[in-house]
Amino acid sequence: MSEHRVVSADALRDFAAAVLARAGLSAPHAAAVADALAWANLRGVDTHGVTRLPRYVDLLQAGDMNPKPALRVVGETAAAVVIDADRAPGPIAMTEAMAGATRKARAAGIGLGLARATTHTAALGYYTIAAAREGMAAIALAASWPNMAYHGARAAGVSTSPISIAVPGGREPLVLDMGTGVVSVGRLTQARKSGTPIPEGWALDAEGRPTTDPQKAELPLPMAGAKGSGLALMIECLTSLVVANPLVSEFLEETPLGLRHRQNGLAIAIDVSRFGDPAAFRREVERTVRAVKALPRADGVDEILVPGERGARAYAQRTRDGVPIPPPVWKELAALAERLGVAMMTTQGES
Amino acid sequence: MSEHRVVSADALRDFAAAVLARAGLSAPHAAAVADALAWANLRGVDTHGVTRLPRYVDLLQAGDMNPKPALRVVGETAAAVVIDADRAPGPIAMTEAMAGATRKARAAGIGLGLARATTHTAALGYYTIAAAREGMAAIALAASWPNMAYHGARAAGVSTSPISIAVPGGREPLVLDMGTGVVSVGRLTQARKSGTPIPEGWALDAEGRPTTDPQKAELPLPMAGAKGSGLALMIECLTSLVVANPLVSEFLEETPLGLRHRQNGLAIAIDVSRFGDPAAFRREVERTVRAVKALPRADGVDEILVPGERGARAYAQRTRDGVPIPPPVWKELAALAERLGVAMMTTQGES
Repeated sequence: MSEHRVVSADALRDFAAAVLARAGLSAPHAAAVADALAWANLRGVDTHGVTRLPRYVDLLQAGDMNPKPALRVVGETAAAVVIDADRAPGPIAMTEAMAGATRKARAAGIGLGLARATTHTAALGYYTIAAAREGMAAIALAASWPNMAYHGARAAGVSTSPISIAVPGGREPLVLDMGTGVVSVGRLTQARKSGTPIPEGWALDAEGRPTTDPQKAELPLPMAGAKGSGLALMIECLTSLVVANPLVSEFLEETPLGLRHRQNGLAIAIDVSRFGDPAAFRREVERTVRAVKALPRADGVDEILVPGERGARAYAQRTRDGVPIPPPVWKELAALAERLGVAMMTTQGES
Repeated sequence: MSEHRVVSADALRDFAAAVLARAGLSAPHAAAVADALAWANLRGVDTHGVTRLPRYVDLLQAGDMNPKPALRVVGETAAAVVIDADRAPGPIAMTEAMAGATRKARAAGIGLGLARATTHTAALGYYTIAAAREGMAAIALAASWPNMAYHGARAAGVSTSPISIAVPGGREPLVLDMGTGVVSVGRLTQARKSGTPIPEGWALDAEGRPTTDPQKAELPLPMAGAKGSGLALMIECLTSLVVANPLVSEFLEETPLGLRHRQNGLAIAIDVSRFGDPAAFRREVERTVRAVKALPRADGVDEILVPGERGARAYAQRTRDGVPIPPPVWKELAALAERLGVAMMTTQGES
């Protein structure tokens, strides 16, 4: 018997919303951020779920995340919109940016939404899937401060900046959501907690030396060497520098601004219905997926998976059966609830 | 003394243009394709340079590449243009697509150019650098038939689809140009020719088994496992499926169309001057590059490089000193020249 507590999607969302409202967010904003966090848990991406709540509350209390942001459009063209997010919680800013990109794409074929001065973006696939459900081929990027080794360096130089791409599919959108590191920081934390040695090529220690010791692993290495850190650097340029809110240089120069939590986000939407029959597009996505899934499998591989497939299955299963919360996360959330005077979430049982 | 012959940039371009003109291209088209191939050689990306000429001539003679294409705009919105490339040589189609994206971006902030039914795209960075010189942040993708193992499969399922991103920089644009495989097919061919064993994790043999034997390596593996093949699959969706010219499914289903050489390309341009001061943007790119290059170096690393830096140096050096052509490539090109009745390029000397 495991000690994981199991919580329904609704209980998870309600709890997260109550915490965020108590930390100062308006009820609609609290509900929106809670939905993005609970979605990550439902998709099985627990590193981006409610486990982030204590950090969000810290950021809100430190003033790095603004509970009452005044989002403003600070730039607009026929196909693009730039939103100053006023340090809004990431899901508020990115939802606006993707909605702006989608609106522009319907009018102009392609649309760009830039979120300047946002905060933790949560799971990027949340925004691209939403756009894909609206008939968009969507791309999202998020820039953050350096937490990953740059290729050839012994120190953090870029972020594990995620990239997500989604397109309308058959029943579900096809959605890729990946970081640019070999592994995420969250995965290293997981290995530290469980004490499992990590493979060579995953991480550097605090002195910037390669390590397989989970207790010493600090910095993820970029995926595919120069490719991963190059991609992360270009994401900073496309995202932070286009909106004149640099993160990498400010951090590496150790300016007061650079050492505060800040992010920028980019959303691109392409309205596939402007270029062909959208039903035919979805059929061709399905056909491509079918062809890929039918490929001969490597030894020991049970099934060929397409991007987002595992997440969609987790979503269906967890929506039905509830989300398991590991004991350390439960304990941390219970302490947070206690501190804020919010009722702890109720469980469905244990799994 | 090596036996490489050294050829000036002009001689390389003139020779390539003469070959392509003899194979049926108009003089301006021959010059344009020759420039793209010579550019790759100058940048040190010899796998995408004049070594491709015999293959281009084969494709032209087989009718897969059209020497007299009638490019047509088949779709247009305020911010996007879709060009049917009529099987034009890739550089003709991609130059049009990027020019269209750039023109649209000036008007609308962001622009999309799609090239449908093009052929071999050549070096993708050629198009993004050109757009960056025009003040654009540019993204280019190219879709091709499967030549890379899909993650978990023992057969080709996707292409080593390249992605290029460039932004205006200080003296030079910052440009990333990468495939989605651990290595390129060209790199495997190189190892085969030199007989050098390849590292584990690079490739599969013809039966889809992992191999380190360069004589048996057939299929590159995707970079970072599921990330590389997922990215390649999404590039097929964004590029081929939006223009209703599927490559992956047709190939895997072994349709007559699927087994012919076809590509599709996508270009996105973002006019950074619509969102801020373009001079300030370039300064911030330079500042970020400076900060990254100043990172503490890992043991054995002489210099931290940013995307495109090595290529820019090769370009300067080879423009000055000429392009070295290895003996097997020289021999192949001489045979091609003889066959077509074109004068072989003249050398500057041997290096």
